[in-house]
Amino acid sequence: MQPTLRKRIALDMDEVMADTLTAWLERCNEAFGTCISKADLHGKKIYDLVGPDRAVAARGFLDHPEFFLDLPLMEGSQAVVQGLHETYEIFVTSAAMDHPNSFPAKYVWLKKHFSFIPDKNIVFCGDKSIIRADFMIDDSVPNLKAFIGQGIVFTAPHNALETAFPRVNGWLDVARFFGS
Amino acid sequence: MQPTLRKRIALDMDEVMADTLTAWLERCNEAFGTCISKADLHGKKIYDLVGPDRAVAARGFLDHPEFFLDLPLMEGSQAVVQGLHETYEIFVTSAAMDHPNSFPAKYVWLKKHFSFIPDKNIVFCGDKSIIRADFMIDDSVPNLKAFIGQGIVFTAPHNALETAFPRVNGWLDVARFFGS
Repeated sequence: MQPTLRKRIALDMDEVMADTLTAWLERCNEAFGTCISKADLHGKKIYDLVGPDRAVAARGFLDHPEFFLDLPLMEGSQAVVQGLHETYEIFVTSAAMDHPNSFPAKYVWLKKHFSFIPDKNIVFCGDKSIIRADFMIDDSVPNLKAFIGQGIVFTAPHNALETAFPRVNGWLDVARFFGS
Repeated sequence: MQPTLRKRIALDMDEVMADTLTAWLERCNEAFGTCISKADLHGKKIYDLVGPDRAVAARGFLDHPEFFLDLPLMEGSQAVVQGLHETYEIFVTSAAMDHPNSFPAKYVWLKKHFSFIPDKNIVFCGDKSIIRADFMIDDSVPNLKAFIGQGIVFTAPHNALETAFPRVNGWLDVARFFGS
């Protein structure tokens, strides 16, 4: 095949298209009687704050088959992805293999909120070095380091201290990055 | 990231690692009272033989959440993949997006029969142009045409007349191709 003329952007789902962190924090705070906020997570992960005794339980919330079904959207994500979709080839590349129970719910969520992205452009994977694209927008620095192409870190509390990649602070910033 | 030193092989699941066709033919023959064999499918797809009136029902068998759970293995697949795994980076790349209900069953099947392949090396996708690998073994010629890398067609009745790619007739032939 000849490479497509349109540049290709690989978009992460969790903490990029979907506000997974808000939902996860709610579950943790309810279960543990804590009041952890996003601000508390600056440069840290939830596991760092709930402590080792609760890490397994915290991770368990993500294994629930329906956890990913009702995640809130990241502000601006639909409109900006729709705009980029007109100029770029958009693939959703989610590291879903960490939570195999999540596949159907993630798929339903994508079809609900990003119905313009065809099924064939959805990828559930693990190691993101398998992705062939020009750009990757992801909140995970290890994912970006594995990727061969231009990585762009999408700001999340846990990556606040990372400096290895160009950074976008939300979807308006993504639009600016791509000049749309 | 520096590209890995080991060459990477992307393996299709259905009709390559798993004998999906045998199980699918059984379902169709049971339901339609037909006696279609693999030999009847030379250069054709099941849809061509069951006829347009039954095509939706035939496809429906693949949408059942458990269809992919108990598929027989392709002869020799475990041993040869295990051997290749020692020299090459092995990724499973399944075009599972055609049947979103299949994700959990496909994952369980892989963990049962190919437990040595780590989760991070499993990919459920649609358009295989997203796959970055050196080789792809697939029974689908459209998948191989989309792939940037060396495509290898794994013989299945429906692709018997295709000539665009090097061909392997089963897993012993795969082992010969890679000199293992």
